[in-house]
Amino acid sequence: MSFEAALARAQADTQATLDEMLARFDGAVGDAMRHACNGGKRLRAFLCLESAALHDAPRDRALRAAAAIECVHAYSLVHDDLPCMDDDDMRRGRPTVHRQWDEATAVLAGDALQTLAFEILADPATHPDGAVRSELVLTLARDAGAAGMVRGQALDIAAEEAEAPLSLDQITEMQRLKTGRLLEWPCRAGAVMGRADPAPMLDFAGHLGLAFQIADDLLDVEGDAAATGKAVGKDAAAGKATFVSLLGVEGARARARQLIETAEMSLLPYGPAAANLKGVARYVVTRDR
Amino acid sequence: MSFEAALARAQADTQATLDEMLARFDGAVGDAMRHACNGGKRLRAFLCLESAALHDAPRDRALRAAAAIECVHAYSLVHDDLPCMDDDDMRRGRPTVHRQWDEATAVLAGDALQTLAFEILADPATHPDGAVRSELVLTLARDAGAAGMVRGQALDIAAEEAEAPLSLDQITEMQRLKTGRLLEWPCRAGAVMGRADPAPMLDFAGHLGLAFQIADDLLDVEGDAAATGKAVGKDAAAGKATFVSLLGVEGARARARQLIETAEMSLLPYGPAAANLKGVARYVVTRDR
Repeated sequence: MSFEAALARAQADTQATLDEMLARFDGAVGDAMRHACNGGKRLRAFLCLESAALHDAPRDRALRAAAAIECVHAYSLVHDDLPCMDDDDMRRGRPTVHRQWDEATAVLAGDALQTLAFEILADPATHPDGAVRSELVLTLARDAGAAGMVRGQALDIAAEEAEAPLSLDQITEMQRLKTGRLLEWPCRAGAVMGRADPAPMLDFAGHLGLAFQIADDLLDVEGDAAATGKAVGKDAAAGKATFVSLLGVEGARARARQLIETAEMSLLPYGPAAANLKGVARYVVTRDR
Repeated sequence: MSFEAALARAQADTQATLDEMLARFDGAVGDAMRHACNGGKRLRAFLCLESAALHDAPRDRALRAAAAIECVHAYSLVHDDLPCMDDDDMRRGRPTVHRQWDEATAVLAGDALQTLAFEILADPATHPDGAVRSELVLTLARDAGAAGMVRGQALDIAAEEAEAPLSLDQITEMQRLKTGRLLEWPCRAGAVMGRADPAPMLDFAGHLGLAFQIADDLLDVEGDAAATGKAVGKDAAAGKATFVSLLGVEGARARARQLIETAEMSLLPYGPAAANLKGVARYVVTRDR
């Protein structure tokens, strides 16, 4: 199967799994949760499914872990889009949750999506071994919490209020936390579900995450709002230091290519079975959204 | 040990456990998490510790579960106090998180406190058996999520916007979700940690939770802002239907007493070892905060 076909299959299967998980929630909060979990690239889900396949973990279980990480990703976007945070009106080409409903619904839907992620992982259907389920919960909580993603978000907010722009080292550290940790987790989860050492996958994910963020910064400068489904040019307008403002467009492109090559090297132990993960690495720096 | 001494010990031990868990988080979000987790009655922690003691689960492990439920309780208060929700300025006699810092910090601190609860539960220090840790995570996620506490919060918000006030049945259902589920979980957790049937404890918690909410409604009418540490008279000012508006002050008091008697009956299987839980039942209807 080609990379494109594998990604399309992952997108369809992840959506079907999320639809099933979300069906029982009623009212505006239920509708908002479904809205927030609809669409997207499903990059994190795909990483989870491909890592699981590499480690011989069954796909039906891996789809549950994929749904869980997409719930956390969706929760982080819903809260990040709030007026008190990034104040965004559009996401994935549609109104953000607080624009379609209201702020209270956005706070609650984000809260409940985070909770749902842990509910999905702790369910015996995700893995027969309670220690594995627990490890999935523990690692996701560490990656998402106040020493992981939330710390990255807080550093990002603090940077906007600071007088001096962030240095390259500081941006790298902030992005490793804010974006990187939620890209690392699905790579790790596949190994945990297959009871394998996650080290090579984490090495891959670390480089992939930074390349992904550089590509995001390039899209903010060069991208098209219609294709990305969200506002562009926001960072420059806000005077924010980004990989592009610090390295220049060409320098940023070169750094992303370098990171992708290093990421691909991390996959050598897996041989040709890692072809789709190499495809992801190329995809994150060539995507238009 | 008297009930008062046991409660004071639970408060001190829970605070020490939380202080330890929260020490590693830096920046405004870390400070806000500690602020939100400081003080309070620690009713949920006490229920967890007493239920664990009844089921022969070690106290050091039970303290971790107690800290986890207090993190979820604190997260729910931080988000509930936001301007887009209840818009409260004071909590436990101090400024709410968004007043002391700002809304973004309150959103992130609440998010991270929820995450921390699951991190604590999934850690092997909480229980050596991964299946037990997983069960603690799963049941807490169900009680806190969009079919549990968050659903209760959404019903409460919807009621404020509805034309007709809620009926007694509707208020009972809303409060069973909004307040009751987070009082049930610690009662259940002690039994799960001791690998015992949680049914009698859940029966106890169900009646206790409703009595607790009626007492809260009475405090909103008759209480003192200095003692409760938060604004009083808000429900009447908002024209909200409460147990007191529907049953009258005397009717509500009688109903709370009846519920407490039924809650105490649920404890009969445990014999005299449940004395402190009976103490909780009396405490929730006689407290002044």
